Amino acid sequence: MQEVIRKILQPNDSKIVLCVLDGLGGLPRDGKTELEAASTPNLDELARRGACGQHLPVAIGITPGSGAAHLGLFGYDPLKYAIGRGVLEALGLGLELTPNDLAIRGNFASVRYEGDTPYVTDRRAGRIPTQENIRIVSRIAEKVKEIDGVKVSITSGMEHRVAVIFTFPEPIPAGGDDIHDTDPQLEGKSPLIPRGNNPRAARVAKVIEKFIDQAAKVIRDEERANYLLLRGFAVHPNLTSYKEAYGLDAACIATYPMYRGVAKLVGMDVLEVEDMTIKSEIETLKRDFDKYDFFYLHVKKTDSYGEDGNFDAKAKVIEEFDSLVPEITALKPDVIIVTGDHSTPAAMKAHSWHPVPILISSKYARGGGSEGFGEHDCSRGELGTFRAADLMTLILAHSGRLQKYGA
Amino acid sequence: MQEVIRKILQPNDSKIVLCVLDGLGGLPRDGKTELEAASTPNLDELARRGACGQHLPVAIGITPGSGAAHLGLFGYDPLKYAIGRGVLEALGLGLELTPNDLAIRGNFASVRYEGDTPYVTDRRAGRIPTQENIRIVSRIAEKVKEIDGVKVSITSGMEHRVAVIFTFPEPIPAGGDDIHDTDPQLEGKSPLIPRGNNPRAARVAKVIEKFIDQAAKVIRDEERANYLLLRGFAVHPNLTSYKEAYGLDAACIATYPMYRGVAKLVGMDVLEVEDMTIKSEIETLKRDFDKYDFFYLHVKKTDSYGEDGNFDAKAKVIEEFDSLVPEITALKPDVIIVTGDHSTPAAMKAHSWHPVPILISSKYARGGGSEGFGEHDCSRGELGTFRAADLMTLILAHSGRLQKYGA
Repeated sequence: MQEVIRKILQPNDSKIVLCVLDGLGGLPRDGKTELEAASTPNLDELARRGACGQHLPVAIGITPGSGAAHLGLFGYDPLKYAIGRGVLEALGLGLELTPNDLAIRGNFASVRYEGDTPYVTDRRAGRIPTQENIRIVSRIAEKVKEIDGVKVSITSGMEHRVAVIFTFPEPIPAGGDDIHDTDPQLEGKSPLIPRGNNPRAARVAKVIEKFIDQAAKVIRDEERANYLLLRGFAVHPNLTSYKEAYGLDAACIATYPMYRGVAKLVGMDVLEVEDMTIKSEIETLKRDFDKYDFFYLHVKKTDSYGEDGNFDAKAKVIEEFDSLVPEITALKPDVIIVTGDHSTPAAMKAHSWHPVPILISSKYARGGGSEGFGEHDCSRGELGTFRAADLMTLILAHSGRLQKYGA
Repeated sequence: MQEVIRKILQPNDSKIVLCVLDGLGGLPRDGKTELEAASTPNLDELARRGACGQHLPVAIGITPGSGAAHLGLFGYDPLKYAIGRGVLEALGLGLELTPNDLAIRGNFASVRYEGDTPYVTDRRAGRIPTQENIRIVSRIAEKVKEIDGVKVSITSGMEHRVAVIFTFPEPIPAGGDDIHDTDPQLEGKSPLIPRGNNPRAARVAKVIEKFIDQAAKVIRDEERANYLLLRGFAVHPNLTSYKEAYGLDAACIATYPMYRGVAKLVGMDVLEVEDMTIKSEIETLKRDFDKYDFFYLHVKKTDSYGEDGNFDAKAKVIEEFDSLVPEITALKPDVIIVTGDHSTPAAMKAHSWHPVPILISSKYARGGGSEGFGEHDCSRGELGTFRAADLMTLILAHSGRLQKYGA
């Protein structure tokens, strides 16, 4: 659809605010979901006057990961585009990526050697403390900086986890990241040699193999974390930017690195937020409201409490957001969208496939179809049930940025 | 989907009436859309007993042109098929087209010459009166009848507009109409030479170039309209006919040339209507009811008043149609469909992307889901929200013309 959109785009000076309450969709307790149980007079009012519906993050019945869900919301069909695990991990650590980078999720493991052959004795190196991880990573970083002209950068994650980025002198060709994991999955086995599944990946795999060997030499004397297993090899997805795809100068207001990173992948400017609160995010929106056409505002805690199975705390975050809605409407954006990237029902303590409620507030909404903002109301809304990847088309339409299609 | 349909088609003697109220969908004034504000007891009754839903003319968020919207309604996906601007213009003037024809929108312009080089001084030739247009067109028609074996026909439109049709001795190959407009867009510039974007189009472009030169010589002495600018080069879309695609003998009852033309493109017989009233259209339906399986009945004024921003007049046309519904039901067709080709909310004075309400009256409808015929009721209807291109499948199903699919 982005191809169609590009042909009929017309610029204007409308303002759009897309509010994503992570994992918003829920399941009922005593007949009401988290969103329905929350007291949300401001969102209810927007829903009554706006257009409601529900979106499917990826496709019917499919539970999305966070990367896939956000690609969908941003209009990149997650069945066609992917953010690889390595890239998502790197973004989550706040790292910057370019199309020259190969990003990898890695973790320390324990091995014993027979001669020079390693055998895995603990795939997670006893989940060493993060502090120990940081110390060992700095040992590697000091010694292994470059391999065959490819820059190497290794960053500590939590416990035994790391992210490794290889920066090539030129963009990595398509398929260059199609490389087998090195984790043998079973203890007692030797780590696998990184093998490319095609000639372009074979060249890249060779560099990785050398890195693993060099790193292993540096940390061979470590008691537990004496080896690196690598997986989730992934390149920058090289997505068309928001500016090119939709003609929008877009900005991201999010507090968690991963969401800031995904927004950067589609060319959004990532704005400074003073602290982790929703209140500060709204302050940022107010501060920079004149500077952009489109704002993606991300609220994380709805998902976190959903994952914890904490129904009441999730509802409370929704109420906190609702209390700040008047500050958004006071800015008089032309279009306000409130939705989630996926559902995270407290009852499931996990992401789920359930459709996600959505409201679009705009002067072009038919409205009058809902009594409030909730899953049950939205399932009968004027927008019907649609795939998240179609949302951007709908947003551009409601902002007057699309001309007629066809004669 | 037409491929699937063809395999499971079964003929029967059912009768289908598809009523298209152009631009039917609207936006609310005081909570009610044009359709909801209109008093429509007969349509409400059909909606209560029938199956309701809403269709997306092209795709979610996309505002269609009239050609694209009708292609969708007729079951030809507008994202795959297109009626070019030149063809639509020609159809609007009541011209007939075959796959051998290249149709073009043109307009008279004023140019001044330096030597033999023309420079545009007025891109619309001062919007000359239609009468003057007719006089000048006849001058060209008298002198330029054929170029390199290609028949030329030029027809006056309103003011400075014309349609030009080139009839080649054989069908124009795919891509043969991919030719740049000759309008330089800016006054003071020379008209562009028609250039083909591929070898097949290059051959066609050569003929057009000669035509422009010859026409320019004929009208060089005109005071204002002394040059022709051409654009919207388009060939007959060569669509599978209704008979072949759906096994239907289909007829069109419409008063405006463009809609009669689009119906002809899909192989419908175009029936005579005594005057421009809906009443006369219904008389035609009654007169020829025995002769066809399928009737496409088009009401134009709903769209015209929508474009004018005249909410009340649009509602009144809907009421006028409603008052004639008993004459349709008295014929006892097996399936009656009432819908629009797209929305034209009076509030927007333009086509829009909003879903279009639809009702299907048939003994196979579940029914009982709506209180009346309107956007809000239809958004919760049993048919859900679906793309217009799927409507013909639904119609054939409700008329008992589709067998089981698969074992």
